[in-house]
Amino acid sequence: MEIDHVAIAVRDVEAAAKDYGRALGIEKIEYETVEGEGVRLAILRLGDARIELMQPTGDASPIAKFLEKRGEGLHHIALRTKDIDGEVSRMEGCGINFLGGIRGGSEGTRVTFIHPRSLHGVLAELCTTPSS
Amino acid sequence: MEIDHVAIAVRDVEAAAKDYGRALGIEKIEYETVEGEGVRLAILRLGDARIELMQPTGDASPIAKFLEKRGEGLHHIALRTKDIDGEVSRMEGCGINFLGGIRGGSEGTRVTFIHPRSLHGVLAELCTTPSS
Repeated sequence: MEIDHVAIAVRDVEAAAKDYGRALGIEKIEYETVEGEGVRLAILRLGDARIELMQPTGDASPIAKFLEKRGEGLHHIALRTKDIDGEVSRMEGCGINFLGGIRGGSEGTRVTFIHPRSLHGVLAELCTTPSS
Repeated sequence: MEIDHVAIAVRDVEAAAKDYGRALGIEKIEYETVEGEGVRLAILRLGDARIELMQPTGDASPIAKFLEKRGEGLHHIALRTKDIDGEVSRMEGCGINFLGGIRGGSEGTRVTFIHPRSLHGVLAELCTTPSS
């Protein structure tokens, strides 16, 4: 398992991507909208991992609620596995709680989320890419 | 630049390391105390990156204040560079604010921290390892 990305909630994804790109010296920034999660993403690649900046697509987005409660900042981490089905089964066997089943994420990934109560307050995504 | 680690504030680092190790299927966990930052760490390796669980060493630790205010959860991300001096100079030239100068961190690293106001609410460590 590896760290796939760190996701950050922001109010304005273009403005934040400009600030992050300048700070980290990254010129190439990709954008994607994941309607199912209610987010518009800016993706900044760092080696095999990424920083994902997330702006809510509407008031009903969970990210809108997060911003209202906590303000901009770290939202979740994502862990990449080659076998998401096997890992979910193994983790459920350890008593880990999930938020919903495995579904489609950004860039053709399959994802699910571990409940923060299972990881000391940390929301963690499990993901697998088409190539992994 | 690459993601070096994700740091998580916890109340009891041994209990949290046990939970994280079981969830992530990681058996080898290293412990280290960084007196200068007021933390006791549990380190879980994921490929070239790590998850660091941080327990405050005392009430004056910044992590104690974080736990009191926010509870357990994501605290900061760390970005590894081969040239921390050069990156700090470049970033200062872009108007990035730092929290203190470059100092010694865990495992012989040299570290400094980017102020959250420069990264949309995210505290980010810059670090360089003896081997990098």
